This record gives sequence, structure tokens and C-alpha cells, in this order.
Amino acid sequence: MAKEFVKELTSQAEDFSQWYIDVILKTQMADYSCVRGCMNIRPYGYALWENIRDAMDKRFKATGHVNAYFPLFMPESFLKKEAEHVEGFAPEVPWVTHVGNEPLTERLAIRPTSETIICAAYAEWIQSYRDLPVLINQWANVVRWEKRTRLFLRTSEFLWQEGHTAHRTEDEAREETMKMLEVYRECCETELAMPVMCGRKTEKEKFAGAVETYSIEALLKDGNALQAGTSHFLGQNFAKPFGIKFLDEDNTEKFVWQTSWGVSTRLVGGVVMTHGDDSGLIMPPRIAPTQVVIIPVFKDDSKTLVLEEAARICAELEAIGVRVKCDAREEFRPGYKYNEWEMKGVPLRVEIGPKDIEKGHVVMVRRLDREKAFVPRAELSVRIPEALARLQKDLLEAARKRQVEQTTEVATLDELAEALEKKRGFFWAGWDGSAETEAAVKERTKASIRNIPFEGSEPTAGMLDLVSGKPAKHRVLFARAY
Amino acid sequence: MAKEFVKELTSQAEDFSQWYIDVILKTQMADYSCVRGCMNIRPYGYALWENIRDAMDKRFKATGHVNAYFPLFMPESFLKKEAEHVEGFAPEVPWVTHVGNEPLTERLAIRPTSETIICAAYAEWIQSYRDLPVLINQWANVVRWEKRTRLFLRTSEFLWQEGHTAHRTEDEAREETMKMLEVYRECCETELAMPVMCGRKTEKEKFAGAVETYSIEALLKDGNALQAGTSHFLGQNFAKPFGIKFLDEDNTEKFVWQTSWGVSTRLVGGVVMTHGDDSGLIMPPRIAPTQVVIIPVFKDDSKTLVLEEAARICAELEAIGVRVKCDAREEFRPGYKYNEWEMKGVPLRVEIGPKDIEKGHVVMVRRLDREKAFVPRAELSVRIPEALARLQKDLLEAARKRQVEQTTEVATLDELAEALEKKRGFFWAGWDGSAETEAAVKERTKASIRNIPFEGSEPTAGMLDLVSGKPAKHRVLFARAY
Repeated sequence: MAKEFVKELTSQAEDFSQWYIDVILKTQMADYSCVRGCMNIRPYGYALWENIRDAMDKRFKATGHVNAYFPLFMPESFLKKEAEHVEGFAPEVPWVTHVGNEPLTERLAIRPTSETIICAAYAEWIQSYRDLPVLINQWANVVRWEKRTRLFLRTSEFLWQEGHTAHRTEDEAREETMKMLEVYRECCETELAMPVMCGRKTEKEKFAGAVETYSIEALLKDGNALQAGTSHFLGQNFAKPFGIKFLDEDNTEKFVWQTSWGVSTRLVGGVVMTHGDDSGLIMPPRIAPTQVVIIPVFKDDSKTLVLEEAARICAELEAIGVRVKCDAREEFRPGYKYNEWEMKGVPLRVEIGPKDIEKGHVVMVRRLDREKAFVPRAELSVRIPEALARLQKDLLEAARKRQVEQTTEVATLDELAEALEKKRGFFWAGWDGSAETEAAVKERTKASIRNIPFEGSEPTAGMLDLVSGKPAKHRVLFARAY
Repeated sequence: MAKEFVKELTSQAEDFSQWYIDVILKTQMADYSCVRGCMNIRPYGYALWENIRDAMDKRFKATGHVNAYFPLFMPESFLKKEAEHVEGFAPEVPWVTHVGNEPLTERLAIRPTSETIICAAYAEWIQSYRDLPVLINQWANVVRWEKRTRLFLRTSEFLWQEGHTAHRTEDEAREETMKMLEVYRECCETELAMPVMCGRKTEKEKFAGAVETYSIEALLKDGNALQAGTSHFLGQNFAKPFGIKFLDEDNTEKFVWQTSWGVSTRLVGGVVMTHGDDSGLIMPPRIAPTQVVIIPVFKDDSKTLVLEEAARICAELEAIGVRVKCDAREEFRPGYKYNEWEMKGVPLRVEIGPKDIEKGHVVMVRRLDREKAFVPRAELSVRIPEALARLQKDLLEAARKRQVEQTTEVATLDELAEALEKKRGFFWAGWDGSAETEAAVKERTKASIRNIPFEGSEPTAGMLDLVSGKPAKHRVLFARAY
């Protein structure tokens, strides 16, 4: 029965990209909208995003940040104030030129990110050292017009959060940059069960306008990397053109030091590609829109008995905070429902029929491996949360193990190119720090340096650059990326 | 001391509009942005909006709705599909004509509301009666370019939610329209302590594209009305041009019946103008960003004692779910802090000094009327929630009483015009149902029919239209509105 349903999805081995599109569309997480490059995030996908958002938001607040909201538009003159920034974003920016039939005197860009709009506000808000630090986050939609799009991973409009902080000292801003990267790492691992590599981006890959960019990089099931979040140390690159100054305790005027950091709806795609299998999605319990689905199994004569018991179990689990659904639809047979909820990736399924009631137990099935257990009815409110916690742990461990297996080391560009033809993944290699090597690798293999990891980037004795053959400055992580 | 601080705000009696701007700016709820007509919602204002949003969202989910997200843009051809709709919104719509340096083949409108985008998706999603009802809500930013703006009440970009539902039958859609209006009423009264009048909009005032529009109308302290939320029965006005059809159980193809409904960040302005006084904001406890502020009062020798006790109280209140802040800043004196938090409208203030500790009590002061009570330390965790609940109730009652006092009845246009010169408010009057009367009243007094209330709209015996003198069809509510 499960097999029959699975036929609707392309298998991962056959065509991973097609599997991804199939599973997103068929589980109704999202679909393509009438506007090129934009998607409709459907309720099931949005519920996952809401849970990711809430998990992140809780952490931002616990680290002293508050939310605010800034305009969607920025005047052209603002965007141009930071030279690298405008160069990086201008080609992808949509321009508003008219309202109704009236032309605007200055055309307006739709925000690709809000540094310039927010810096204009900060220049007004910040006057004294007493006004610092400013620790603000914004949840918003942004637009970067993309030529090639992929649901959740790369769309012309997407939802994200962008933290924008201003500090009195460089040290404090650098500390904030690192703190938020760590919040991202911890949240991705704890909540999304998605292990990531933390490190610094190369000059070539850093954010337009930043002094330094740090990233968390996930490795998906197909061996492609996903830049899952970035944290930027902006130095005074924006403070100076926007005039964000404060009177310090020593009575001198100084520019603030800034950071910005963001994660987006692409995390939803990351979750799908980290855990999903040929039967569909697998939702990590902590962020699963539905954690447990109850399937009552009955015939005419046992219907009332079973449905009432299923409703009681549902209410009991709800009462202890489990996100649970009872699928009592009569037009579908249990097998059909099992498959549907498996495709939707619900972590645990509880089956209950008249015989189970007689025996005083239920059948509990894990989505991950279809492991089956008979759970005494009286123990459900303990065993279900336990099973959810164990599944969360198992998913993270499985992803970690896979990441290790997909990570190898190469010494030369030839080796990298050959390896990539067989199997994608993370590739450690020596790098002399030159842009030439980055370009040569990209040109031949489409791989880029994902980051210079915090751990393991010290070159081993005698390590050479994989292209130039010069002594390696860093040991870095190459991969093809979404 | 309180007086001194208040001097910074224009008094309500002197100039209510200026008081409103003063209080929004000085409490840092919002300010004007660099883009004309758009505002920066600052953290304090956003925190209030977050609480309103969460209170609404909880109710939407409890009534079976789910959230989703649709694109910011719509192709010009889509906006034009419903004739009245495009006519109503086209003059305020910003147009995107270019991306980077490339002109678009079809220009894109930025959503003023999402009926057309969402209907295009529903036409794909809905095939069978089994797909119905669709009960979706979206939290999003929308843009309606405004000539005259006012912080929160009328800005070119604003945040809102828009529910969009599709149903099998007309009855079901009508029931949904009413259900959501009632959700709005209940939420505004319970959470915002803002009483509203529920009723049907006239033909002239209804939503562009709706069959019928219903509204909740608040009456603010200055006697101006605020349309605080609307719920539209769309009939099949969108279903037909967008082709949203389903195969019904009887095997015939039918068009769906639709509703849409929305509230926005203007509710923040409503809260400010419903409760605020000459000392500043008054936040209803249920949605107050901070419900209780603790002010430790100490000298050098009592500092440790008092600060430690204040921190303990803070932790205790937090533990029972009270949103509490301890203001331990040493650079400001207690009086300064009292005034600052009064202006910010924090419902309760707790003062604690060495003598209070000795006596085993704290001083609790209500923002509303500065009522002062000595509360035994041991009773705090009971008395504080009680005091918050009582204040919430008192605020609603005070607003209700004020609304009654500001509501009168007039028989003729002359009477209405004279009354409005003295004092604004709600004015009951007879209406013959004609657009001519509406136009004549608007022309002379700037007042409009806010709605035809569900209660009290039956004309009394012999009641006449206030302009035409013809027999009244309805007894309706006139007011000047924001």
C-alpha cells in the first residue's frame, strides 16, 4: 500500500531535484504563483515556517533583541549611499516608477535587504552612548529578482528576518556577529535537526557592504550545500555614509559599529532536503506542524467505540501540548491515510482499532523507519513525548552521520572534479587565499568555498593550494551550493 | 513631578491631533520614515502590534483558519479582472515597471489587498466540494498610496491580516462573514478594551468588489469614528472572473462563494486614541507590551537590599506569566521613571523602598487613575493579576461610558451640522436609503454613515430622513471618521 502511494513521487536516486519539486507540490507546502519567480506558500508549508520563525524569535528575544518594522521601499538615493552594497543588489531590484497614473519624482526600490532604510532611521534615533546598543530585528518580505528559481530555496520574493544592531565599540559588534551565528547554529541543530558548518565567508562570497560575513552551511541529501544563515560584521561601512554618530561618555562624537544577520524561508527547503526520503517529507518533531496523527480503524459495528476513544486520546495529547490531529475521514481507508500522512512527514502515527481498545494499547509507528510499538493506553502521555524527543535526536544524528559520510578531502582540482562527477558533498582542500583559485575551481567544477570553518581550517603540515600548488593559508570547505 | 513631564505633550483639550502625534513620537511607538507616507514602527509600537496580532491569530486558528502567504505583486491583467475592484484601488497602486535596468513585459502592481492574487491560486487549488471550505488567512504588508497620512491610522504601507475563504454555499459564506466580524468585535472588546458598533456598510461605503461589507466602528476620544475592521461577503463576484469552480456532490460544476476580512495596524492608533490621556498612553493590560514596571527606590546604604528584593519580585511575577520590567537605572531618579512609564502607559507600577521592605509590603499604583494601594508582599502574585484584570475591565467600561456620552440623536441635517460644530461623536439619524442623502451630509458636515448597526437600526415610528424628509428606511450612525 505504501509502495503504491510512493509511485507518485520521483525517487531521490532517480532525480533528486524532481523529487524535491514533487514532494513540495504534492504535500501542498507551496506552488508556483501567477507572478514569475514568486511562490504561494500554502498552509502546510507556512505552518512549518511559523514554527521555525517562532523558534528563532524566542531566541532573539532571549538574547535581548526586539522586533520592529521598516518600510518596504527605499528612495534610489539611499540605496546608492554604500557603493559595494548598491553594486551587489541593483541588478535584482524592482523599481516603482508610478503610483496610479502619476510618475514619482524619485523612483523607489523594493527592499532586497533593509540596511539603507534602517540606517537612515538609526541616524535619527541614536544620539548618545546611552541609546546603545540598538538590538532590533525585523520579520519581513524582501525581493531579489532571480533568473532561476527553486521553491523555497531561491524565489524572487521571500520571507525572512533581518537583525540590525548598532554598538558603541568594535568588540561589542564583533561579539554580536558571533553570538547570532551561534544562535542560528543552535536553533538549526536543536529545532530543525539540521547540522551546519560555521565559518567565515571569503572576500568574494561576503555580503555586499560587509567587512566580514559568517555563515552556517548545511549539506543536503543530494550533497549540495545550502547557505542556511549569515551574520555580517558591517564595521562602520554604513555608519559613515549614513552619519550614524553618537556622543560617547568621553564627550567625543563617534560612529557606531554595526551588524546584520538573517535567515529566510529557504530553511524550509533545507528541512525538506535534510530529512525527506522516497516516501515524502520527514518533519523534525520540534517544528512539525502536526507531531502525531491518530488513525482510527473501525468497521460499522465498532465505529462509535473507536472514534470516541480516538477523540479521547487526541484531547489527552493536546492537553499536554502535543500537536495532534485525528483523521476520522470516512471516505478514505486507513492505508490511504497512512500514506498521506507519511508523505506529509508527520513524525508519529497512532493506529487504534477495536482489538487495540480491548487489549488496552495503541499501535505507534515512527515515520523515520516505520518502527512499530504497542504502547499501553495508560502510558501514552509519557511515551508519546519520549518518542518525539527520541525521533528528534535520531534525525539529527542521522543527518550528522550522513554529513560525515559526504565529506572528503581532496588535494588537487583534478581530484575535486573527479570526485564531484561521482558524488557531491563537502570537500576539504588547501587554499592559498587567492581569488584566482576560487575562480578556477568555480569555472571547472561549479563548486565554491562555502566558508573557512571555525574548526579544522588550520592547514596541515605541507598542505598546498589545490590549484596553484602554493602553500595553503587555510583548509576550507568546497561544495556546489544551492 | 508628573506635571513637569506632561508638559512635553500637547494636552488633548488643546489639540487632540497634536497630542496623538506627540504621544506616538515621544513614547517611540513609531516615527516618519524617509519614504513619504510610510512609517517606521519602532519596537514599542511593534510590541503592541505583536500582542494584538497574536490575540487575533489565536482566534482565527480557534475558528478553523490556517495561515499562508501569497506574492506581493500582481500582474496588471489580474487586477483588472474585477471591474469595481480595479476602479476602487487603481489610483493608489504603485507600479513596478523595471527590474534592475530591464523593463518588465507586463508591469506589476503592489498589492493593495490580495483578492486577485489569491483567487488565481484558488482557481487551481479548488476542484471538488471535498476541497471546501478553504479557510485561509494571511499576515502581510499592503500598500495604498495615501495623500494625507497619519501615523498608524493611514499610512501608504501598513501591516494587516486578510482572511480569504471559499465556500460551497452562499449561506455558509454569509455565516463566515458574520462569524469573523464577531471575532473582531469580541477581540477588540476583550483584548483592546475598545467597544465597537457592528453593522452593515452602505452601498457607497462598501469594499470595491464586495456584495456586502460589514464593519466594526470604534469611537475615539476626540469623537471621531474609526473603521476598525471589515468583513466582506464577496458572493461570486471574484469566483466568476477568476473561474473558481468545483464539482459538487451532485456532479455539477459550481462557482464558490467567498468572503474576505481584515484588520490592520490602525488598531494600534485606535488603542492610543481610545484610552490615552494627558499623561500619555494607557495600555490595556491584556495587550500591554509591559504590564507591570517595578521601580526600586533606594539610597546608597539600601541599594543592595532594595535591588535584590525588586529582582526577586520581578522573577516571581515573570514566573506566573506577568510581563514585567524592573527599572533599575541609576542615572535617573524615581520621579523621572514614574513619568516615563506613565507616558508609556504601563498599567501598573510597583514602588519598593527600604521602608516598604521593612513593613512587608509594596506600593502599587494604577496608571488609569493613580489609585494607590499597599499590597502585602506575600499577596503580590494574587493581587497583581487581579489588579490587571480589574483595570482591563475598568478601561472597557470607561470607554463604553464615554461612547454612550458621545452618542446623540439628530432629526435634521441642520441639527447634525450644529451638533458637530460643538462636539463630535456618533449621531443616530433617520435615512431613506438614498445616496443623495449620504452625499448631502458629507458635503455639509464631512460626516458619513459609519454603518447600519445590527442593533437599533429599526426606524422609530414616523422617523424621517434627515435630509430628504422622506420616511426613514433605517436608523443609522453618522460620524466624522479617520
